[in-house]
Amino acid sequence: MARMKVTVAYDGTDFAGYQIQPVGRTVQGSIQKVLQKVHKGEFVPTSASGRTDAGVHAFGQVVHFDTNMDIPESGWVRGLNAMLPKDIQVRNVEKMDESFHARFSSTSKEYHYKLLTGQQPDIFRRNQTFHYPYPLNRSEMKKACEYFLGTHDFTSFSSVKTHVTDKVRTIYRLEMVEDGEELTFKIKGTGFLYNMVRIIVGTLLDVGRGKKRPEEIKTILERKDRSFASKTAPAHGLYLIQVSYDEETE
Amino acid sequence: MARMKVTVAYDGTDFAGYQIQPVGRTVQGSIQKVLQKVHKGEFVPTSASGRTDAGVHAFGQVVHFDTNMDIPESGWVRGLNAMLPKDIQVRNVEKMDESFHARFSSTSKEYHYKLLTGQQPDIFRRNQTFHYPYPLNRSEMKKACEYFLGTHDFTSFSSVKTHVTDKVRTIYRLEMVEDGEELTFKIKGTGFLYNMVRIIVGTLLDVGRGKKRPEEIKTILERKDRSFASKTAPAHGLYLIQVSYDEETE
Repeated sequence: MARMKVTVAYDGTDFAGYQIQPVGRTVQGSIQKVLQKVHKGEFVPTSASGRTDAGVHAFGQVVHFDTNMDIPESGWVRGLNAMLPKDIQVRNVEKMDESFHARFSSTSKEYHYKLLTGQQPDIFRRNQTFHYPYPLNRSEMKKACEYFLGTHDFTSFSSVKTHVTDKVRTIYRLEMVEDGEELTFKIKGTGFLYNMVRIIVGTLLDVGRGKKRPEEIKTILERKDRSFASKTAPAHGLYLIQVSYDEETE
Repeated sequence: MARMKVTVAYDGTDFAGYQIQPVGRTVQGSIQKVLQKVHKGEFVPTSASGRTDAGVHAFGQVVHFDTNMDIPESGWVRGLNAMLPKDIQVRNVEKMDESFHARFSSTSKEYHYKLLTGQQPDIFRRNQTFHYPYPLNRSEMKKACEYFLGTHDFTSFSSVKTHVTDKVRTIYRLEMVEDGEELTFKIKGTGFLYNMVRIIVGTLLDVGRGKKRPEEIKTILERKDRSFASKTAPAHGLYLIQVSYDEETE
């Protein structure tokens, strides 16, 4: 029996989210269907680094499964891509030690959130960027980013539907990168609560428009109350970019 | 009665082509449905600069219609965009002289064809670029481009399904532009026969891979026989970028 680590990209547009569910097309369901075919009808469970919501994309989601099939890593990549739908792409397959777990072994995650700030929407990217045609005060937003860095209780920046009790997380990096009309937030941390990246982005946008001052981030964190942060930014701007499994954290 | 010129972008992915047909979702059908609503149920015919096939995109398709509604140009833009589906976008509306005709007044058209040449496909652009992960001899392709310039009979570079009898067209410009792994062919001319851009691109790709020599373009043009040119490149890399209505041609 070998444990395989699979790095997967997907366009979240036509999925009801990552996690398998009774009704609706899901990424996990699509992957497991293919694995079951490869294993001659035998059900093959998978574990991912975490779920993503409907409409959220991934460039580097990580999934693991166990197999007793003797297929080389490159054969898995080719074979799975040949059978998977066009909106899921296996980027890499690697044989791991049996102690590896896609979720529990992860040490950090990186997400990007993409906005287009031009007046006209780009219809070719309408499902892959959030169109936000408002003037934004970049320097105020950059100041606000600083307040998120480090270890905080992120209760105010997570959905009230979050089930976990420990809401303390560490953010290593939060950057704004501009490329023409494209504005990307890059955020890396130990882990993220439900909707956390999207609520942080929504709040930064309110700072950019002058609805909140950068210093208020500190107060909002201290309140530990979701209602003090801003609206959740829409799913289709969000990408799970990379899951890291380094021994040392940064 | 006023004649309105509408500049439209659309993502061709989910359309059975531009032109209305009894079955299938079309761009023209979607636009006329909205115009009919605006005109309180009255059917409003439209004329476009030309058709595009299923999967082909447009950034600057031009369509005209006549109306007796007193709506300012910017009101048409906002109103139509509010009612049109997400994959069609009105970029501009302009009141024209009644002699203007989207098809017959046009003096030139520009198309782009986009390829991604990296080993891995980019799943986020899978419907908007043609993934072509083969080594290409750029300088041979550039030489081949030269042979298309000027006025020629393009019978060899049009679908056998073409109904027009005069197959002489003038190409003003044919360029290859590289941006990282993205390779774009930009072609501008008096007009294009059915599948003409896609057959030119397919033939240039064969030149890039050494299957045809640049000088053969000349012979293929002279043959006036579709079977001498290469395979038609797929629809989803093609964009109708601009339709020009200049008094003078270039």
